[in-house]
Amino acid sequence: MQAELGKEKISGEAILESLNWRYATKNYDKTRKISAADWAVIEQALLLAPSSYGLQPYKFLVVSDPDVREKLRTAAWNQPQLTDASHLVVFAYKKTQTEADIARFIDRIAEVRGQARESLADYENLLNGSVKKAIDGGYIEVWNSRQAYIALGFLLETAAHLGIDATPMEGFDAAQFNQILGLTDYSAVAVAALGYRDAANDWLANLKKVRFPAEQLIEKI
Amino acid sequence: MQAELGKEKISGEAILESLNWRYATKNYDKTRKISAADWAVIEQALLLAPSSYGLQPYKFLVVSDPDVREKLRTAAWNQPQLTDASHLVVFAYKKTQTEADIARFIDRIAEVRGQARESLADYENLLNGSVKKAIDGGYIEVWNSRQAYIALGFLLETAAHLGIDATPMEGFDAAQFNQILGLTDYSAVAVAALGYRDAANDWLANLKKVRFPAEQLIEKI
Repeated sequence: MQAELGKEKISGEAILESLNWRYATKNYDKTRKISAADWAVIEQALLLAPSSYGLQPYKFLVVSDPDVREKLRTAAWNQPQLTDASHLVVFAYKKTQTEADIARFIDRIAEVRGQARESLADYENLLNGSVKKAIDGGYIEVWNSRQAYIALGFLLETAAHLGIDATPMEGFDAAQFNQILGLTDYSAVAVAALGYRDAANDWLANLKKVRFPAEQLIEKI
Repeated sequence: MQAELGKEKISGEAILESLNWRYATKNYDKTRKISAADWAVIEQALLLAPSSYGLQPYKFLVVSDPDVREKLRTAAWNQPQLTDASHLVVFAYKKTQTEADIARFIDRIAEVRGQARESLADYENLLNGSVKKAIDGGYIEVWNSRQAYIALGFLLETAAHLGIDATPMEGFDAAQFNQILGLTDYSAVAVAALGYRDAANDWLANLKKVRFPAEQLIEKI
């Protein structure tokens, strides 16, 4: 169906089929790998996720090295997805934001949009003010970390549409993760394992999805 | 294309077309409303978003009342999307989590999956332990608020696939929002305005999307 503004519309049925199909996979089929073409879509979804002011105050670590994945597993209550899934992404947020970071962002706007950098001076001041307020108010880490979760949402929904299983995970020792991954200016905050479910060996695969009823979560005003 | 596990696969091209098409709309067409059918899909996407342990520690307030939306606009730097977009969702996270909340969640699992409640006793203890740790550690609010951002990601991606514009917003006075919306156990943390862009009157509509290059955000290990 040709929809609004020349964009091909994806049907609501197809979208909800994906979102109902997905679940936090516990056991992956170790023999199945995500294709390079599908993986490129996942990475693009991460890059296209919006963030506050567009600052993208995070990094995505795609960990393929088996030794590193083994170490991460040890720091994550030995959960098998860390080593068994086809792909593993660690979401790490930026622990602060400097004027140099903001300048780099303004440079990027000027570059992508072919704008004169001077025309962005007011915007740069505004951003520096917002960031300073967040640093002084002690909420820069919370603010930045939340942005990473929008990208996590994009990864999970995109994977589902591609028929790729994914597991969002927070159960790990962030300090150990940071050490293993050599993170200093960033801190690991969430992990996504991706691949294909081993449904026959996953106790959760065939259980019904549990959600609170709509009327308890959605309030109409 | 028939893909993995009987799920109809949505093409990567269609997914990325949506994510490239979306942008943080600044000016909405006040005359165009989202259809009931499309809106139902958006709400389902919010309900289907995953959260830590599945606790869904948030509420989505869908604000239609024009007077309330006017008040919210005043508490949000007078940004026009608050009143002009077809729909408005306020994301509010739960400020704490009680044993009664956990019990209600366990009840829900038992109900949906037809399980004996007693069989979930260990899991209930585990959850109570995790929540207590988060409360004692002072990070329950941060933890809960992050979960709301996964749902925000689902809303933004789903809207884009439906050809619906959406604007994620954090620029508002949360204390004022809470007062206007009568929130006490929850706190407003993000807003999404949804509807259809008024491209002719939106300075951002035709500007290129700015993102940092992949190699600056994605690290391969």
